[in-house]
Amino acid sequence: MLNEIKDKINYSAPKDVKELDVINIFELEKTAKTVLPKDGYDFIYGGAGDEYTLRNNIEAWNKKGILQRVLADTENPDMSTTVLNQKLQLPVIVAPIAAHGIAHDSKEAGTAKGVAEYGGSIMSISAYSSSNFDDIENGLQGNNRWFQIYMSDDIEVNKNVIDEAKAVGASAIILTADTNVDGRRERNLRNKFVYPFGMPIVARYLKDGADDTSSETVYSRKKLKLSVEDVEFLANYSDLPIFVKGVQTPNDALKAIGAGASGIWVSNHGGRQLDGAPGSFETLEDISNAIQGQVPIVFDSGVRRGEHIFKAIASGADIVAIGRPVLYALANGGWKGVKSVFEYFEKDLKTVMQLAGTQTIEDIKNAQLFDYNK
Amino acid sequence: MLNEIKDKINYSAPKDVKELDVINIFELEKTAKTVLPKDGYDFIYGGAGDEYTLRNNIEAWNKKGILQRVLADTENPDMSTTVLNQKLQLPVIVAPIAAHGIAHDSKEAGTAKGVAEYGGSIMSISAYSSSNFDDIENGLQGNNRWFQIYMSDDIEVNKNVIDEAKAVGASAIILTADTNVDGRRERNLRNKFVYPFGMPIVARYLKDGADDTSSETVYSRKKLKLSVEDVEFLANYSDLPIFVKGVQTPNDALKAIGAGASGIWVSNHGGRQLDGAPGSFETLEDISNAIQGQVPIVFDSGVRRGEHIFKAIASGADIVAIGRPVLYALANGGWKGVKSVFEYFEKDLKTVMQLAGTQTIEDIKNAQLFDYNK
Amino acid sequence: MLNEIKDKINYSAPKDVKELDVINIFELEKTAKTVLPKDGYDFIYGGAGDEYTLRNNIEAWNKKGILQRVLADTENPDMSTTVLNQKLQLPVIVAPIAAHGIAHDSKEAGTAKGVAEYGGSIMSISAYSSSNFDDIENGLQGNNRWFQIYMSDDIEVNKNVIDEAKAVGASAIILTADTNVDGRRERNLRNKFVYPFGMPIVARYLKDGADDTSSETVYSRKKLKLSVEDVEFLANYSDLPIFVKGVQTPNDALKAIGAGASGIWVSNHGGRQLDGAPGSFETLEDISNAIQGQVPIVFDSGVRRGEHIFKAIASGADIVAIGRPVLYALANGGWKGVKSVFEYFEKDLKTVMQLAGTQTIEDIKNAQLFDYNK
Amino acid sequence: MLNEIKDKINYSAPKDVKELDVINIFELEKTAKTVLPKDGYDFIYGGAGDEYTLRNNIEAWNKKGILQRVLADTENPDMSTTVLNQKLQLPVIVAPIAAHGIAHDSKEAGTAKGVAEYGGSIMSISAYSSSNFDDIENGLQGNNRWFQIYMSDDIEVNKNVIDEAKAVGASAIILTADTNVDGRRERNLRNKFVYPFGMPIVARYLKDGADDTSSETVYSRKKLKLSVEDVEFLANYSDLPIFVKGVQTPNDALKAIGAGASGIWVSNHGGRQLDGAPGSFETLEDISNAIQGQVPIVFDSGVRRGEHIFKAIASGADIVAIGRPVLYALANGGWKGVKSVFEYFEKDLKTVMQLAGTQTIEDIKNAQLFDYNK
Repeated sequence: MLNEIKDKINYSAPKDVKELDVINIFELEKTAKTVLPKDGYDFIYGGAGDEYTLRNNIEAWNKKGILQRVLADTENPDMSTTVLNQKLQLPVIVAPIAAHGIAHDSKEAGTAKGVAEYGGSIMSISAYSSSNFDDIENGLQGNNRWFQIYMSDDIEVNKNVIDEAKAVGASAIILTADTNVDGRRERNLRNKFVYPFGMPIVARYLKDGADDTSSETVYSRKKLKLSVEDVEFLANYSDLPIFVKGVQTPNDALKAIGAGASGIWVSNHGGRQLDGAPGSFETLEDISNAIQGQVPIVFDSGVRRGEHIFKAIASGADIVAIGRPVLYALANGGWKGVKSVFEYFEKDLKTVMQLAGTQTIEDIKNAQLFDYNK
Repeated sequence: MLNEIKDKINYSAPKDVKELDVINIFELEKTAKTVLPKDGYDFIYGGAGDEYTLRNNIEAWNKKGILQRVLADTENPDMSTTVLNQKLQLPVIVAPIAAHGIAHDSKEAGTAKGVAEYGGSIMSISAYSSSNFDDIENGLQGNNRWFQIYMSDDIEVNKNVIDEAKAVGASAIILTADTNVDGRRERNLRNKFVYPFGMPIVARYLKDGADDTSSETVYSRKKLKLSVEDVEFLANYSDLPIFVKGVQTPNDALKAIGAGASGIWVSNHGGRQLDGAPGSFETLEDISNAIQGQVPIVFDSGVRRGEHIFKAIASGADIVAIGRPVLYALANGGWKGVKSVFEYFEKDLKTVMQLAGTQTIEDIKNAQLFDYNK
Repeated sequence: MLNEIKDKINYSAPKDVKELDVINIFELEKTAKTVLPKDGYDFIYGGAGDEYTLRNNIEAWNKKGILQRVLADTENPDMSTTVLNQKLQLPVIVAPIAAHGIAHDSKEAGTAKGVAEYGGSIMSISAYSSSNFDDIENGLQGNNRWFQIYMSDDIEVNKNVIDEAKAVGASAIILTADTNVDGRRERNLRNKFVYPFGMPIVARYLKDGADDTSSETVYSRKKLKLSVEDVEFLANYSDLPIFVKGVQTPNDALKAIGAGASGIWVSNHGGRQLDGAPGSFETLEDISNAIQGQVPIVFDSGVRRGEHIFKAIASGADIVAIGRPVLYALANGGWKGVKSVFEYFEKDLKTVMQLAGTQTIEDIKNAQLFDYNK
Repeated sequence: MLNEIKDKINYSAPKDVKELDVINIFELEKTAKTVLPKDGYDFIYGGAGDEYTLRNNIEAWNKKGILQRVLADTENPDMSTTVLNQKLQLPVIVAPIAAHGIAHDSKEAGTAKGVAEYGGSIMSISAYSSSNFDDIENGLQGNNRWFQIYMSDDIEVNKNVIDEAKAVGASAIILTADTNVDGRRERNLRNKFVYPFGMPIVARYLKDGADDTSSETVYSRKKLKLSVEDVEFLANYSDLPIFVKGVQTPNDALKAIGAGASGIWVSNHGGRQLDGAPGSFETLEDISNAIQGQVPIVFDSGVRRGEHIFKAIASGADIVAIGRPVLYALANGGWKGVKSVFEYFEKDLKTVMQLAGTQTIEDIKNAQLFDYNK
């Protein structure tokens, strides 16, 4: 049945598969711009409103400085960590991103293969993926995956999707709570961007018949009115750990935990939702202080360098998730590009840890940053 | 008699009437620049001095950040509110602006029709309108209107004007208190800008005869020495609620209320009067804290996005007024443009409210902003 | 004898005499650049080092904001004030500037005539003027003048110069204390700038004979080691009020007063001396707080608008002095230009006072600014 | 044997020897760019990551302002000082820099001769010099020198190198503690930069035979895992004072002193190691406050002007070291250029001291800066 979900319009995504010499993510972004259709690049790159928050996600890193620590007895730092009993060789996972097909012809399957070939991480599979579970599994080759859900207003759809995600091995559910309506992304409006792909994971469970299983239909059935009850439902129904994603305030973090969340995902959706907001990193420390380690924190929105990973962890995150860097890598080099981008983050974080005198992720957590706000 | 007030010089305002696809107000500003005569655009766009305060009115919004609130049980937010017992479907009204004729051939009547066709708001009619009350009423079709007055040094003129404003249904008087002398607007000086229109609303009551009823004459009879007594006079004579417009300090807000003002209008006149001043938004919270809800607050100077409306209300405003956005819309599309700009603000505010987890205007008032000053 | 002091090199200064339509001083600066020889413009415009402090003198004004005050019963503000019993119609005087001849062929005599024709102010006559006292008097026509001295290492020269300054009616002595060595002005170094004029006021008293009375010789005899004793000497010998100019710290202000100074001149020499310093305006309030009105404060370095005059007086200055604006005006329009620039400051300050609700200079002193540092 | 260490690739360094008219170091940098091979210039100029910290090293100076002090009885300021009983005529020494050969054909010997001809300073000789000790001595002509060491993982190499450094008269050992792994310098990655020279000082003691004594080999034998024991070893074995270089935190300064360091070298390696760090100057005051004068502080990273030297000393440094300015001077003018750059710093600092009213280095230490953070 999945094969019946057709992509709706002609969209010509890149097809190259090659290793990348990643100098930094910003250069990857620039080359991605040259290989992607303009509206596709703008969809990936863009943020909401005047993109103040998008820019702020990057600039916020400079609100705190790392300090070199010397004579620290450090050598060959250990970047491995554990989150919800899942071992990671690098505290970096793939954020849930819809429609990898916009970046590359291999879609989510390409990303999955890149993750697997790198040696493994956690792949967050978006409910709005442009690949179906089977294709993603082909790439992922047994690696860890979490499943991200946009709640449907049809509870049966939610149940069916969760059932299938569990069946294909998802070990956690990520509830995206910050996107019950899309932010006003002006680039897309200017481009009159039309989402080029179907959403096979969700679409197959819509009851309306094949003709209505387009992305517009899926999207139109999204549930707007999210509350703690949705967290409770997901936790009870799935019996999996639930992350609430899009948390920007201590109160919401505590509310989510109170409702049964097993993890907090600090994110402003990459600046794509609510413009005029602080940089995501600016909200992290207060949230971490509020929840005091009750549950793990995943951080995203603005991670582009090893330095950023370090600062996020030193400010309370357990791991970080990367979104745009994955898509830029996928656009530039398919699965080999995704592998390269993980290798880049590994190499850069390792250097930062060595220079900062931190042998382990635990050491980063204890590192003191130079705080420009104090 | 009104028809005898002629426009003094040739000024070729745009005449197009069309719906606008408003991406944002800044783009509207850019297209307005292409359709307006240079001196007309500069008159509308420009601020006083080096336009520091003009720029600051926009930049000041970034002194506070909105924070997304999740799991907030929000759906289809209700943007309606009430000010002085007048119901608004959107907390946005038209600021009093002189000479809409500079923006469009339809003048204030065009703006009025746009407001009415949108579904209603409050139109603030400037004493220095380039249309007369009859023309404006043709557009406004019974919608709410307030009347803005520049006090004349001839008390009879003031009385006559107020009498007529009441007769045509004005339900409040706005005393502009920040413009007893014009700010030094360097663009106008450079352009040797000559005000192209008469001021029919006031001019008919000047005693000097038809030849002297030009805008220069009207302007020369403006009263410079405003005091609390003017507020008292207006309140007593008109028996209407009085807004004091141009308040930037807590003390002046309290002084105005003490003199009988029924509302405070926080504004720096769009940066057109006193340069080297803080952004208007920077002054709002202190004023709101000082008056503690005794009277409603209207806010203007810098509102360009739904995000701004949200921040203003969360900082103490009851409603906001828009000036330049209306004129840019009018220039680009006449009354249909004005309708489009109201629709833009409605759509954008609705998205912001949904994302911020605020179901009602009251919820916005209770929202906590991320404050970069603290 | 004065006529024997020849200008040393060919330097072709502007000669035009005309009224100026001053939009603002920054535009005057731009047109001055087009009429002045490059090295002359650079000499006037430039600051020390990387010109950080030069820029900061302007940017510092934005550390405090003026706030409009409404209903303030203000009309036709009175800008007159008194300093050391000398009445001024405007709180703006001419700063002591060397070598007006670089700006205009009429040299200091042109500036003096501009001041007189404007209706009077105080002209600070620099010891390093390119005109002699007689020529300046021709322009000044009896108006107030103060005399600025760079101490010579030859006490007899100092005595002679003071004697002559008194004889020509100087009513105060300004001791420039911040220029015992010249700041490193890189523009002059790049241009290999040679000072084109003699210094007739001082040169005639040097004992070394006509051949040595060049500006180099005068300059080489400048006293480096200034101390409170110099203030005491000047006060005792001249029996005139002494201003110590170049004060940037409360301690130095108190030290100067303790040594007999009758006034403090807060200045960083227009950013021409010590780079990497705060903007002069940033130092004013602390100095004013420290001396608590014991003596008047003259402020300079960065005054370009009425707004700046207002902010300086509201922060503790009694009057301000203008340097570069005078020379730019002189370059553009000779004495008529200087008259125009005073008229500009008068008009702009009057507007600012009206808008800020301040009827008198005393009202400005009591005005509260919006302080971005608090 | 040293002669057997060949430079590995063709690299065409400048050869000009001439005095320089140094206006400022930034202009020297620009002209260096025109005379150096691109990859060589980038190697010298570049920093780690996005060069945020590199830029911050310069911008950080503006976090504090110097204030002119007047009537301060200052004349012909005395810039001499003493560090570890070594007399300096100027509180400026040569930082340890590898591979001066990248800047000029005369390599370290050129720098050494410039220092000697200037009249003497301290030359910090890098273990990774491109000249050997004999050549450097030819230039240095008996002047003071310190020896900088990168610890090798072969303790015998360390001993041999220290023995030789002592034999050639090094009076202190500088342990570079912030570079156990190289920062990610993206310019070098982009240029695929290959280090063009051997490292004769260290290479001769490697046991692996001539073929392996390349810079790659030397570098590969660098000890990563530095600790206080290395400080203890160096102090005990060399019986010389030890500086720990690369300190950015009070804790590390105290740790180093506890391990026997005789001096603290505050530095972030010119922004070449850990990006996302504060400007080096921003870390100085806290370190100085922590160690309370127990040992002298050398400061580097960002010193480009006399103003900077002043601010560093007023914030706790005893002397400063210059790196890039030396190489830019060497590139532009060989040893004569190095002499010129010292003369520039001398002249500029002297002017700053005079203007700031500081007669001695001790007076600078007691000077109060205008602190923008307070």
